[in-house]
Amino acid sequence: MAAEKEIWQKIGEGFVQEYYNQFDNTNRTTLGDLYSADACLTWEGSSFPGKAAIAGKLASLPFKSIKHIITEQDFQPTVDSCIFIMVFGQLKVFMLKHHACSWVCTNDVFRLGIHNIPA
Amino acid sequence: MAAEKEIWQKIGEGFVQEYYNQFDNTNRTTLGDLYSADACLTWEGSSFPGKAAIAGKLASLPFKSIKHIITEQDFQPTVDSCIFIMVFGQLKVFMLKHHACSWVCTNDVFRLGIHNIPA
Repeated sequence: MAAEKEIWQKIGEGFVQEYYNQFDNTNRTTLGDLYSADACLTWEGSSFPGKAAIAGKLASLPFKSIKHIITEQDFQPTVDSCIFIMVFGQLKVFMLKHHACSWVCTNDVFRLGIHNIPA
Repeated sequence: MAAEKEIWQKIGEGFVQEYYNQFDNTNRTTLGDLYSADACLTWEGSSFPGKAAIAGKLASLPFKSIKHIITEQDFQPTVDSCIFIMVFGQLKVFMLKHHACSWVCTNDVFRLGIHNIPA
């Protein structure tokens, strides 16, 4: 029998699943609700500070819909009771914090890996 | 004139430079000192909890020396006064926390990106 997963891994996996479900299957306007008010997004080196700027950036991406392929996910708890997540495939890093009875993203960095492989 | 860099970016860049200097130019036995006592490392999906386990893993890697090529680095401050770092090239994520007058790594995830590109 496989070992029971740690709670931070279950929360992290649930967050990633919900995030990409919304990303792939909605018009992305609701994604901002997964971020805290003062969250940071760095998208290919450009900064989008705060929930409104992040929601605007994600809603304005030029593709209409996209299917994400997630090949690997890694989760860790942090000393500040946050959850640290790396998603490979689309190459994304998240930090989640518990706030007002739910988990929100406070930090997010994206890079499209396939364009950045060193020669 | 370029804008002055934020303090968390300067600290993050300094940490990454020192980390890879030690990684590339020493026998890697000193790398453990850059981690906090209860730090977590996830290396290609395997967990190495605590400074001693991390130092042992890094010292035992099969190559004698390696030259890292860093193509991109992203930095963010967190709400808990930590610094969130993504390094592309070798594909590494760090979380730094201020402790006893210096900055130590509390979370680290590594994946070799070039082996994980989705088909």
